[in-house]
Amino acid sequence: MAKPLRIGLIGYGFMGRAHSNAYRKVSNFFDLEYQPVLKAICARNAENAAAFAKKWGYESIETDWRKLVERDDIDAIDICTPNNSHAEIAIAAAKAGKMILCEKPLSMDGPEGVKMVKAVEKAKVPNIVWYNYRRVPAVTMAKKLIEEGRLGKIFHYRAKFLQDWTISPDLPQGGAGLWRLDVKAAGSGVTGDLLAHCIDTALWLNGSMDSVTAMTETFIKQRKHTLTGKTEKVGIDDACAFLARFKNGSLATFESTRYARGHKALYTFEINGEKASIFWDLHDLHRLQYFDHKDEGKLRGWRSIHVTDHGGEHPYMDKWWVPGLQIGYEHSFVHQVADFLASLSTGKPAGPTFRDALETQYVCDAVLKSAKSAKWEKVPRVK
Amino acid sequence: MAKPLRIGLIGYGFMGRAHSNAYRKVSNFFDLEYQPVLKAICARNAENAAAFAKKWGYESIETDWRKLVERDDIDAIDICTPNNSHAEIAIAAAKAGKMILCEKPLSMDGPEGVKMVKAVEKAKVPNIVWYNYRRVPAVTMAKKLIEEGRLGKIFHYRAKFLQDWTISPDLPQGGAGLWRLDVKAAGSGVTGDLLAHCIDTALWLNGSMDSVTAMTETFIKQRKHTLTGKTEKVGIDDACAFLARFKNGSLATFESTRYARGHKALYTFEINGEKASIFWDLHDLHRLQYFDHKDEGKLRGWRSIHVTDHGGEHPYMDKWWVPGLQIGYEHSFVHQVADFLASLSTGKPAGPTFRDALETQYVCDAVLKSAKSAKWEKVPRVK
Amino acid sequence: MAKPLRIGLIGYGFMGRAHSNAYRKVSNFFDLEYQPVLKAICARNAENAAAFAKKWGYESIETDWRKLVERDDIDAIDICTPNNSHAEIAIAAAKAGKMILCEKPLSMDGPEGVKMVKAVEKAKVPNIVWYNYRRVPAVTMAKKLIEEGRLGKIFHYRAKFLQDWTISPDLPQGGAGLWRLDVKAAGSGVTGDLLAHCIDTALWLNGSMDSVTAMTETFIKQRKHTLTGKTEKVGIDDACAFLARFKNGSLATFESTRYARGHKALYTFEINGEKASIFWDLHDLHRLQYFDHKDEGKLRGWRSIHVTDHGGEHPYMDKWWVPGLQIGYEHSFVHQVADFLASLSTGKPAGPTFRDALETQYVCDAVLKSAKSAKWEKVPRVK
Amino acid sequence: MAKPLRIGLIGYGFMGRAHSNAYRKVSNFFDLEYQPVLKAICARNAENAAAFAKKWGYESIETDWRKLVERDDIDAIDICTPNNSHAEIAIAAAKAGKMILCEKPLSMDGPEGVKMVKAVEKAKVPNIVWYNYRRVPAVTMAKKLIEEGRLGKIFHYRAKFLQDWTISPDLPQGGAGLWRLDVKAAGSGVTGDLLAHCIDTALWLNGSMDSVTAMTETFIKQRKHTLTGKTEKVGIDDACAFLARFKNGSLATFESTRYARGHKALYTFEINGEKASIFWDLHDLHRLQYFDHKDEGKLRGWRSIHVTDHGGEHPYMDKWWVPGLQIGYEHSFVHQVADFLASLSTGKPAGPTFRDALETQYVCDAVLKSAKSAKWEKVPRVK
Repeated sequence: MAKPLRIGLIGYGFMGRAHSNAYRKVSNFFDLEYQPVLKAICARNAENAAAFAKKWGYESIETDWRKLVERDDIDAIDICTPNNSHAEIAIAAAKAGKMILCEKPLSMDGPEGVKMVKAVEKAKVPNIVWYNYRRVPAVTMAKKLIEEGRLGKIFHYRAKFLQDWTISPDLPQGGAGLWRLDVKAAGSGVTGDLLAHCIDTALWLNGSMDSVTAMTETFIKQRKHTLTGKTEKVGIDDACAFLARFKNGSLATFESTRYARGHKALYTFEINGEKASIFWDLHDLHRLQYFDHKDEGKLRGWRSIHVTDHGGEHPYMDKWWVPGLQIGYEHSFVHQVADFLASLSTGKPAGPTFRDALETQYVCDAVLKSAKSAKWEKVPRVK
Repeated sequence: MAKPLRIGLIGYGFMGRAHSNAYRKVSNFFDLEYQPVLKAICARNAENAAAFAKKWGYESIETDWRKLVERDDIDAIDICTPNNSHAEIAIAAAKAGKMILCEKPLSMDGPEGVKMVKAVEKAKVPNIVWYNYRRVPAVTMAKKLIEEGRLGKIFHYRAKFLQDWTISPDLPQGGAGLWRLDVKAAGSGVTGDLLAHCIDTALWLNGSMDSVTAMTETFIKQRKHTLTGKTEKVGIDDACAFLARFKNGSLATFESTRYARGHKALYTFEINGEKASIFWDLHDLHRLQYFDHKDEGKLRGWRSIHVTDHGGEHPYMDKWWVPGLQIGYEHSFVHQVADFLASLSTGKPAGPTFRDALETQYVCDAVLKSAKSAKWEKVPRVK
Repeated sequence: MAKPLRIGLIGYGFMGRAHSNAYRKVSNFFDLEYQPVLKAICARNAENAAAFAKKWGYESIETDWRKLVERDDIDAIDICTPNNSHAEIAIAAAKAGKMILCEKPLSMDGPEGVKMVKAVEKAKVPNIVWYNYRRVPAVTMAKKLIEEGRLGKIFHYRAKFLQDWTISPDLPQGGAGLWRLDVKAAGSGVTGDLLAHCIDTALWLNGSMDSVTAMTETFIKQRKHTLTGKTEKVGIDDACAFLARFKNGSLATFESTRYARGHKALYTFEINGEKASIFWDLHDLHRLQYFDHKDEGKLRGWRSIHVTDHGGEHPYMDKWWVPGLQIGYEHSFVHQVADFLASLSTGKPAGPTFRDALETQYVCDAVLKSAKSAKWEKVPRVK
Repeated sequence: MAKPLRIGLIGYGFMGRAHSNAYRKVSNFFDLEYQPVLKAICARNAENAAAFAKKWGYESIETDWRKLVERDDIDAIDICTPNNSHAEIAIAAAKAGKMILCEKPLSMDGPEGVKMVKAVEKAKVPNIVWYNYRRVPAVTMAKKLIEEGRLGKIFHYRAKFLQDWTISPDLPQGGAGLWRLDVKAAGSGVTGDLLAHCIDTALWLNGSMDSVTAMTETFIKQRKHTLTGKTEKVGIDDACAFLARFKNGSLATFESTRYARGHKALYTFEINGEKASIFWDLHDLHRLQYFDHKDEGKLRGWRSIHVTDHGGEHPYMDKWWVPGLQIGYEHSFVHQVADFLASLSTGKPAGPTFRDALETQYVCDAVLKSAKSAKWEKVPRVK
């Protein structure tokens, strides 16, 4: 008999939709002991909350997240609000004994993240952060290839996340859909929004970083603020690039920007190992590029692997359609829900937990610090 | 207030899942007057039907499609059974006044298809065939570009659909999952299964065909039959290629096979017009390749358009995520459901109707006839 | 001590340049017993011949090819004239005991080709036809892979050669640079000019063809003739597509056109075998795409092999630069010269000989015949 | 009447061949007042020099470069020796009044480069450095697009040059073919060998750099030295990455390594401007990727431009074959010779001159300095 996992969702924007879709679909495709139940959606505006509830099948609404957190009929709180509210909500939810699924980045900075980690660990509640790209099948397969030792010693890691949606100086900052440009709501610009994804994947695939040196830039210095109506200084980083040394001795480059004309969500990473290399690109997320030096010499070449094969060989893909038929962005969230649900049965946490995500926060902090200090900065160890 | 469209689904295989998923998702993403209600699933085996109903949320089960067709609480019959049962079910459903959503190909052959067309037109019930690839956004955009006159006079059309899953002689024919190899159930091999998709798209994009010349081959002559347990002659075509002349004067090549090592579902088409050309590939379905001769000379090149932009510019994509984030195979079915639901409000049929799909059937018939006659065969006109 | 091979070149157009460049370069890169000496260039217009001789270092000029053929200081005649003069020149050169390097296609048709084959075989002079694409390293490697049995039984062959340079109706036919549009000079349109390349490669890689069915089209029915100044009927085929059955049981599609907007010289071929598949594309001629089914399941993918590796593993490439640095179109001619020179030392003919090329001619004839008869036509066996 | 440019080449390795080929070919394809004459090849070993002279058609040999430099029948000295001999030879050649074509990098470091610049400028002799990639047609076109203002304000520049040929610890350092691993001969590792190319292109396309921060690594710490026979410390950088700020306000990342498994000579650069972006890749050097934001919204996409079109629209390509037929690596050298020869007629220097190349040297120095200091370093201005 299926066990319900009663979800209380806070926030109904882009991520609120992505998560709701994942909760609704997971049981159609995965056979799991636990099944999500869409119990409540919380938003300040009751009308909007009601409309969202109707569209997605939430049973009830709340307009105050504190009430939601206290409800007895909620097992798990899903935090889809802007970054500056993650900590307060998560800590309250932990105190109320709720499981927590928190949007990324975990927090506004490392110290805030530490408090969140302490809260969930003290409360012993299952917790996870929505770094969804880990669960794109091609990325998950990359992880497996590394674990199987196919790449050998790693020499290089390079990642970038390029967008172009803020080039226009007429784009305002702040408010619905644009809080990512408002430093008070977002904490940082591309570093926390985009590089955090790259860093999470990198730490997962390549282990901890030792140190970084970075530069950031804000190309458009002032923008109209949607909430105040005034032209205000832009506090976020429009672009950020950094060099890193990993503890395994590999060298890395990371770059993100919202000023790369022609790219919408070009998150790519490449790893060069002694024996093999891999490359992945979010714009064709269903493919993994793979080069294996042990292939016969004259036939060596980068393989474009269409990661859509069933039979358990390609991660998650046996749950979907038939070979050759690709899945998309939204499926990474379904996989995350599936793994989280499975972890409730096994008791083995599904990552990235808050603790895992704290390390990403520390890297972001070191990056932003280095951009100011113009020096190499050590990445603190998560204790 | 939303109006329900009560669905009765017959068959629960690959397509049963794809359609169910589409019915469940459409209202989360599209704002429509009508909303599907999963009323009943019908399968011969009650246990299987019950399991499927539970997994997908169907309210009830049936084990006899005739009973389903007669139920008063069903508005629309969705036929996901093997090809040899489409006609009987569809005709009965039409007589019962049900709307019909029929899997492709419409029928075993043209004459059978004619009866189906007559039945639905006599009953005046909305009807549609699941040629889902029309509604991949990149393909829908191709249609719009052609309608806007951007390609000018068409010179060439070329399509292929390549797979490799039947190369092993150990693969049996017949039975669950393998009825596509059994000529009695399928009617033909790649012609009805794969080329039918290519033909439907081609007729939609490029108009009617005048005549064809074809060749077919059955590489593996005998296979064990799953149902009889005996090694039996294989009656289907493993591969089929044909040349065609369209009524607009363009020349075409079509090819399909299940013996193209390395391809899983490589459906591609290219259209060369006087002014521009387009190319699409199911293996990267979220992209459209486009060449426009009116681009400045030195800067002419094939554009790889990532069809994921919102704002109504890329068909259907404003309903999904944000630019750069791709959708997958399953979304084409959601789009088809959305368009079918919208057609109930507007009264303007969503294609391909049974009548539209009959033309594809006629082309398939001419192709198979030519493969036997070794002559060019005229494609009959749908009256 | 190097032995000279004294060349007499007839014609100084596009091919005259490509061949001259090959003769000049071959000894810089290949260590061979024979070395070409640019003895004479022959063209009707003495001034043009002199200018060409100066530019390329030919020692002398002739304005009458009959005189060239009779010269004692010429070892080999290179025929770069329009198709309708190949036979006459070649037969005379053979009678004069000259080796012959003849531009493709060999002849205007099969019967004419037979005479040429007889002439060179009677005279026992080394002879070769400039089907240069055989010697693009990636194509030569394809041949080796097939010979090594890596593809296993062949199921499918598909080739196309697409261009777009004759779409404008204002383009005239006939005369310098445009004789390819004049049926009297060219014999046929895309069939002899482009498909002949595809057919030569196919016969080399996949063996003889059994039969074909074809269609041709002339989209622009009339064009001004450069020589007469009058608008005349166009006699060539603008486009041609055909289906073929090879003697090894494989099925094939071939297509060529000069009306494929966006393609300049898109010669591609793909071969699907039981065990592996290969794909090649002239637009990126330094790459070979390769899929090997014996790769580990989850890691199977099309390999993009950059055929630029040295050490003898990639054909011809040890003669050029270093890995990763590509060669271009012209190098295929250098390779052909190198192989021809080597054949003079070994006594083992370098293909395609006139006899080899006659088979291509027979296929072209069958294709053009089928386009008229609308029937399948047998390809005659070369006796 | 053609004027001879009598070349004296020093060194006969990889670059000696590339340059000789360029000298031999240029007059066949370009109509220029000056024509190279292969007067003398200089190498320490007379036998090797003679063999090279014979293969390439040099009229004479020298075994002491000082003698070559003094010869009256030499107009230009081409320096193809290891980096540590460039300065001495170049300065002597300048004093002797010879034009100089010097392999890259110009010098071992900036101060040495300054002396070379002074020498050639004092002697007023034409001088150029072989940064050949500027003259790959796609790269030259990139320059033109930028000059035409098509990209608008530049936000980002990113370049990398990845190889994998030194991964094996068994590879020795020093001696013929391996001097690039010997810090005494090479000065540095990938920085001077590979990044110098990236930097030259970047300075040309994007203007001067303000400052850099870098990291380098030597993965294999010791290698056997070919000359001494002993295992010695490796002094070069195996990998180097740096961040840069250009004076035009754009941010940049640069990376090079010889430990990127799967890449042979993957030199790529991308430039993101306000209005358009471009990308180029040496592994497919005949293509330029271009994204233009002013394209109609729904049809925006990266264009893959096959830079092989004639008519003067694609740089240099009207000299070669016909559209669609690619050239290769070696042609960039031919173009450089052609431009150098043309500059002798016009009196307008062809870049990069020694002075231009000095700036690249300064960037390299700053990069290597930063790798040691772990700080941002200013790039000195070339005075």
